[in-house]
Amino acid sequence: MQLPTYDDVIAAAARLQGHAHRTPVLRSTTADARWGASFFFKCENFQRMGAFKFRGAFNALSKFDATQRKGGVIAFSSGNHAQAIALSARLLSMPAVIVMPKDAPAAKVAATQGYGAEVVMYDRFTEDREALTKRLAQERGMTMIPPYDHPDVLTGQGTAVKELIEETGPLDHLFVCLGGGGLLSGSALSARALAPDCKVYGVEPEAGNDGQQSLRTGKIVRIETPKTIADGAQTQYLGEYTFGIIRRDVDDIFTVTDAQLVDAMRFFAERMKMVVEPTGCLAFAGAIAASKAIAGQRVGIVISGGNVDLSRYAALLSS
Amino acid sequence: MQLPTYDDVIAAAARLQGHAHRTPVLRSTTADARWGASFFFKCENFQRMGAFKFRGAFNALSKFDATQRKGGVIAFSSGNHAQAIALSARLLSMPAVIVMPKDAPAAKVAATQGYGAEVVMYDRFTEDREALTKRLAQERGMTMIPPYDHPDVLTGQGTAVKELIEETGPLDHLFVCLGGGGLLSGSALSARALAPDCKVYGVEPEAGNDGQQSLRTGKIVRIETPKTIADGAQTQYLGEYTFGIIRRDVDDIFTVTDAQLVDAMRFFAERMKMVVEPTGCLAFAGAIAASKAIAGQRVGIVISGGNVDLSRYAALLSS
Repeated sequence: MQLPTYDDVIAAAARLQGHAHRTPVLRSTTADARWGASFFFKCENFQRMGAFKFRGAFNALSKFDATQRKGGVIAFSSGNHAQAIALSARLLSMPAVIVMPKDAPAAKVAATQGYGAEVVMYDRFTEDREALTKRLAQERGMTMIPPYDHPDVLTGQGTAVKELIEETGPLDHLFVCLGGGGLLSGSALSARALAPDCKVYGVEPEAGNDGQQSLRTGKIVRIETPKTIADGAQTQYLGEYTFGIIRRDVDDIFTVTDAQLVDAMRFFAERMKMVVEPTGCLAFAGAIAASKAIAGQRVGIVISGGNVDLSRYAALLSS
Repeated sequence: MQLPTYDDVIAAAARLQGHAHRTPVLRSTTADARWGASFFFKCENFQRMGAFKFRGAFNALSKFDATQRKGGVIAFSSGNHAQAIALSARLLSMPAVIVMPKDAPAAKVAATQGYGAEVVMYDRFTEDREALTKRLAQERGMTMIPPYDHPDVLTGQGTAVKELIEETGPLDHLFVCLGGGGLLSGSALSARALAPDCKVYGVEPEAGNDGQQSLRTGKIVRIETPKTIADGAQTQYLGEYTFGIIRRDVDDIFTVTDAQLVDAMRFFAERMKMVVEPTGCLAFAGAIAASKAIAGQRVGIVISGGNVDLSRYAALLSS
């Protein structure tokens, strides 16, 4: 298996030019004073459809050939990947089918349909979504794009940290959330190329530390779906591509509790005036926990997204 | 009375260089599609201490002479002006006294003290805060800086729209929140100079439409303290300087209800991932209400701040 390289991230950035937002890098004097480092927050919660996932999806779909474009794209997801694929397909004028469980929140179904995708429902208890997706792909001539374990997806995600380091200059440390590893592996490609001395860390929920176990044992560890408020990191295992890069380019993987995520979420709301979804709080919560080790240094934080149901968000803020 | 000019805004911008954040201008595809115009959001909720007020306070304090610096600054406020003065005084190494009511929220007192200011409490029912402030100013040789009706304050506030239009190019319409008129009058100076054809509007709470009455009758109208969730716009009357500019340079003043503010607040959280305080929602709520009149055009929106108690914010989001 050939792993993608930083050159592929550069090519992805060219494809995203004029389509993805170049999201702002924000600072916080309060964060710097409280935790004793210089933080640079790359705000992918301000990305189109509210998360970095747009980058990978748009990059992958941009590479479709004429036949693939005609057939369109199919994906299974009830999260940010669904909306990222739906929006990218609309922008590139191709059909999109998103396979979602029948009991997915109505708001997510509506949002995905709002971007023009066809939503196909399945029964989580009686149907196999992968088999269903494959059958539909074959019947309709559609190309399946997975949420993270795909070279074009992960190199698209890597463009966020490319932009970050181009704007800030070299960093000493970089913290990135970790679910399936698309964002972390792409970020690592960019960091290794642009700031070779920068330490790169993944941060995952304590309840689902398969990434940490995988890095430490040197092989992909599979776990049960973890119980955590970080719904974007409820993955059971890393991908082949993403782990291949993570194993080589990532220095360590930390874990944080849900309570630490809520603390970070409150900080973002109260002091930085940003809505960040629980998964998007992973990187900063990890950096706070590691504040002794990063004291006085330049620290990049990738805020991955801001898609959280408002009533749930309000409940978490008041908790 | 000589009104300040756009040249004073340019001078203020030079003083703020390297001290105030150049806040981002964000776009929202969803807002553009839903309300049929091209919106440019100038995000002063990301300004230092969370609101545009830092600009005016820092500009005013930067102009103090050596004697004034030694004596320091005094202000009465329990809102954003208090924190703006406190932070600016700390940055310029001068003493600051903020006069606040005894029953001000502990969080606001703590935040102001956190910026290094001395807080002097008074009893709202038995003491006259203006008399107290004047007496303290005289006793301690401090200079009083009012929250809006001061040339250096309002021209400092004008730097936000200067940055906005420099970044976006000419706009057709500009919506700005209106309390005492510091932000609106400063914004109007910048808009008139940089985009002469741009219509400039103030937006105030329906419960406190003294600005609208003042513009329409041609003289400053005084009202009772209005009951509204927009606590930054609970002013009773415009200032002499601010009204002088508003009367000349502002095209119209609209009002919105608290319910419209909450709708805008929810939109900012849900779609733009931003925490905006109720007062900061005035401009966009006004633009939404006027969406027929601005269809297809380029519209600037000034988001004034994001300082809202988290539990209150959570309650408003869930309301």
